[in-house]
Amino acid sequence: MLFRRVAVIGVGLIGGSFALGMRQAKACESVVGVGRHPANLRVALERGIIDAMQTDVGRAVEGADLVLVAAPVAQFPAIFASIGKFLGPEALVTDGGSTKRDVIAAARAALGKKIGQFVPAHPIAGAEKSGAAAASAELFNGRRVILTPLPENAGSGVEKIEKAWAACGARVSRMDAQDHDAVLAAVSHLPHVLAFALVHDIAHRPNAAELFSFAAGGFRDFTRIASSHPEMWRDICVANRDRLLLEMNSFSGELERLRALIEAGDGSALETVFAEAREARDRWIRSS
Amino acid sequence: MLFRRVAVIGVGLIGGSFALGMRQAKACESVVGVGRHPANLRVALERGIIDAMQTDVGRAVEGADLVLVAAPVAQFPAIFASIGKFLGPEALVTDGGSTKRDVIAAARAALGKKIGQFVPAHPIAGAEKSGAAAASAELFNGRRVILTPLPENAGSGVEKIEKAWAACGARVSRMDAQDHDAVLAAVSHLPHVLAFALVHDIAHRPNAAELFSFAAGGFRDFTRIASSHPEMWRDICVANRDRLLLEMNSFSGELERLRALIEAGDGSALETVFAEAREARDRWIRSS
Repeated sequence: MLFRRVAVIGVGLIGGSFALGMRQAKACESVVGVGRHPANLRVALERGIIDAMQTDVGRAVEGADLVLVAAPVAQFPAIFASIGKFLGPEALVTDGGSTKRDVIAAARAALGKKIGQFVPAHPIAGAEKSGAAAASAELFNGRRVILTPLPENAGSGVEKIEKAWAACGARVSRMDAQDHDAVLAAVSHLPHVLAFALVHDIAHRPNAAELFSFAAGGFRDFTRIASSHPEMWRDICVANRDRLLLEMNSFSGELERLRALIEAGDGSALETVFAEAREARDRWIRSS
Repeated sequence: MLFRRVAVIGVGLIGGSFALGMRQAKACESVVGVGRHPANLRVALERGIIDAMQTDVGRAVEGADLVLVAAPVAQFPAIFASIGKFLGPEALVTDGGSTKRDVIAAARAALGKKIGQFVPAHPIAGAEKSGAAAASAELFNGRRVILTPLPENAGSGVEKIEKAWAACGARVSRMDAQDHDAVLAAVSHLPHVLAFALVHDIAHRPNAAELFSFAAGGFRDFTRIASSHPEMWRDICVANRDRLLLEMNSFSGELERLRALIEAGDGSALETVFAEAREARDRWIRSS
């Protein structure tokens, strides 16, 4: 048994799936869930995701030897501030935040000398569904989880957190927090902003209903991530804004070059760009 | 039996699927296929998509009472020019082109007095696969096909073409060609350009391999259309460039507004945009 009592703060898709994955792997004895929405916690209880629900964060953390913080990242400062003094000396904390520099800064500010007990993690397993109802023991199966360990972490603590995520089926790797935020801005945060932007742009046209009625499978898949959790993505965009803005700049430059080719009717150059993109994507799909 | 002999010019995903759909519905007696790539035509023969292959367009068209032009749209002028004089007085022509104003202009220039025999169509059933190997009798099942009839068309001709596409399982509607090109620029052509642009941008980074290795399901779906046929999309972008450029302008404006909100850290406004996009998309998914 890896852990005895796990406290999950935020029993949504990520927190709930972590709890289910740990239980299925028999990697913990019990799970207590904390959250803002009693109705969601009741769903988590009914589905056997958690054994007990708590509205008081301190009480939930007190007896836990593992704490998972899986709320939208803007709530992390308040959560870290409220768990600090209840955290036992042997307890470990990990998280499910999609950005890491801001989460680490918040933890550092609130946990003080206990900062070495926090092993930051980002499970790359979002979905457009949210809440305990969408949680699944299989969510992390084969998905990547990036740990961004701190200089203060004990090696044994990082390994235990690595084992916990691996018990949920994840492929765990380690990365510097700066690199993490740069990589995710490019392959996750920017695409989400683009999808939200496209749907928002179309939804505000006078003929929006007609436009949607002729949208097909390509549009559906392209915009799937525009059905993601607005609050979560608000927080990610604000937390990682410097890297996201760099990616938006880069993308705008690419779009300007394509616009010039389209304006000039330069079919040959367009075909080269499209063929290179297709080849790069197909290579990635084959290798993943 | 709706038609006796169908000539399919370009036996790719669209042309091959139309042939299979017509055969399955017993809406034609035989299909002759014409194409630039003998290997692809042999696949079409082996798969029972066509009964005979032809390299000479004129000979294929001569005995046909229905001709489907399903090549990349840049080839349409040459194809129309070569079929004109072989087209029997009772024969009808339709097409699978993703743009309509340019296709109609090409047909008008080449077919002369026979222009009334051409009923333009756009089956909205692209996929990132191409070629006869990817064709399927089910491709058009429940998908939309837009007819953009001409003033010169006989009502009976339009109805027969409508029945042919409906025999393949499609939901057929009619629209003005101008409107068609504007609608499709927004919900299809622009998203393709955005997906190609994102993958192309990332593929040219020094750390492209690392970036792709952390791309997940959201990225995969968002970029699925970047695996589309480069030549086909080159032609669409050039043919519909005026409308596509308008859409790129509109999208860039939306992106600039989002950038300003991100730069200002205006989480509340960002959340409103994201929530409106999610709500619009979810409403569309529920109704489609």
